[in-house]
Amino acid sequence: MDKDTISNWFKNLQSDITSNLEKIDGSGIFSGDTWKRSEGGGGHSMVIENGDVFEKGGVNWSAVHGNTPQKILDALKLEAANFFATGVSIVIHPHSPHVPIIHMNVRYFEMSNGVWWFGGGIDLTPIYVNDDDAAHFHRKLKETCDRHNVDCYPQYKKWADDYFFIKHRNETRGIGGIFFDRLSSKHGTKKELFSFVQNVGNTFIPVYKEIVYKNKDLIFDDNQKKWQYLRRGRYVEFNLVLDKGTKFGLDTDGRTESILMSLPPQANWAYNYKPETGSPEWDTLQKLKKGMDWVNK
Amino acid sequence: MDKDTISNWFKNLQSDITSNLEKIDGSGIFSGDTWKRSEGGGGHSMVIENGDVFEKGGVNWSAVHGNTPQKILDALKLEAANFFATGVSIVIHPHSPHVPIIHMNVRYFEMSNGVWWFGGGIDLTPIYVNDDDAAHFHRKLKETCDRHNVDCYPQYKKWADDYFFIKHRNETRGIGGIFFDRLSSKHGTKKELFSFVQNVGNTFIPVYKEIVYKNKDLIFDDNQKKWQYLRRGRYVEFNLVLDKGTKFGLDTDGRTESILMSLPPQANWAYNYKPETGSPEWDTLQKLKKGMDWVNK
Repeated sequence: MDKDTISNWFKNLQSDITSNLEKIDGSGIFSGDTWKRSEGGGGHSMVIENGDVFEKGGVNWSAVHGNTPQKILDALKLEAANFFATGVSIVIHPHSPHVPIIHMNVRYFEMSNGVWWFGGGIDLTPIYVNDDDAAHFHRKLKETCDRHNVDCYPQYKKWADDYFFIKHRNETRGIGGIFFDRLSSKHGTKKELFSFVQNVGNTFIPVYKEIVYKNKDLIFDDNQKKWQYLRRGRYVEFNLVLDKGTKFGLDTDGRTESILMSLPPQANWAYNYKPETGSPEWDTLQKLKKGMDWVNK
Repeated sequence: MDKDTISNWFKNLQSDITSNLEKIDGSGIFSGDTWKRSEGGGGHSMVIENGDVFEKGGVNWSAVHGNTPQKILDALKLEAANFFATGVSIVIHPHSPHVPIIHMNVRYFEMSNGVWWFGGGIDLTPIYVNDDDAAHFHRKLKETCDRHNVDCYPQYKKWADDYFFIKHRNETRGIGGIFFDRLSSKHGTKKELFSFVQNVGNTFIPVYKEIVYKNKDLIFDDNQKKWQYLRRGRYVEFNLVLDKGTKFGLDTDGRTESILMSLPPQANWAYNYKPETGSPEWDTLQKLKKGMDWVNK
């Protein structure tokens, strides 16, 4: 299981996901940009804008290498070493406030000193939380986890709850999903863990397709669109203030346009906006909490 | 020159600036929110939304106290001490892409161990850089600085260039202005420095009024509005990724709605947008650089 096998599999995952998203959209086409990183390696960014369903979305693949950033070495108390990192990152912002924003990341990291790990996850950010969709989403993620290790869903679900928590808003970014990082030989063989990460990657299209098809033709009004823009503002706050991948990318002179592909086409901020008690917007806020048991909803 | 004198002067500055901004706007009215900080002190936030000229703006005053955050103590190698901090922060987002976004901050900080300092600055973020306005703005700031110390404008101008630089975009947030921090007994008596900070505070309305009046009735089209939304996206990136005040506020559990009053009503992101060479948008990008000599333009 060498790094090229993993990296190539991720590259194919990118192709597979973008062609499936094009089919789901029915009109939008991804366009690609290949880029090089001056310190070593590069990537291929694929972007869809103004599709029928997807307003803006990015599916980014990269495989980069070079000297391991000092911060990582310090955190692990390791001497200087080369690193190799590869992964796929996706954020999709649909037009309709009835279709959730989705994010997925799968990644592999290794160093010349023999240290390696996998990380990743999938999470959903509905503008309006629909209990059935949320339960469906979490059940599918649980199935994927259970095939790997029946204990891991609760752990990776909690990890997502904690990771996607916006402390300064006292709310979660969305309904969470699964998140995992630094899965290494303590957690399984490289083959087993790669197989799990592949299953996560392959879960993306079927789980999202069902939610998109179910909701994409529902009508919406200006007030629902306004709410969507405010929620996207929260998405921006999470990604720019809290997201470790974004911070790492910007700190290490990554390709800005690929890192910030995750930002929505439009986001709004209103001062101290509070939805009316009992409204659908208020109901959604009640559900943006850690520890929601969606699987057993 | 005790802390209450300074804090009261800032409170009056807030009233003075909001009533003048209302006159300039001609229709919008500020509404106020008084808030308390659980650890000590509080503030008063004044917000204008959907005025004739100003789409969204906030003028925030606060006077807070408590235990000095450990980070500050560590940085200064000081033992535990109480702190008191007071200041006024302003960000104004006009409707028209011909009227620049403006930001001002004036602040005073002291600790029970006798350490004290002033900080602050004014800077301008035009959507389209107008050379005459930029020169006027910088000349007025230079006049304010010169009354205090003829050497300080170049130094505080450079400080603003460095502070408001968006490294991941390789551009400055706007045309800069002046920025200064930790002005203490090394730089003058408390009376002298307070007088300088008062002059900075009193510069805000005259310098901005002239630029607003000159530009507010110019017509603009959809493309210019689109450019404004993209530039506001950069403003969001600066404030959420780089601004130390925002980071400090969010890290220390400040009042989120007052800290994030600085965010625009609407911001957009487009993938890898590059204005046509020679266009007004392109011309603006050429001027968002450090070291522009606006005073002698």
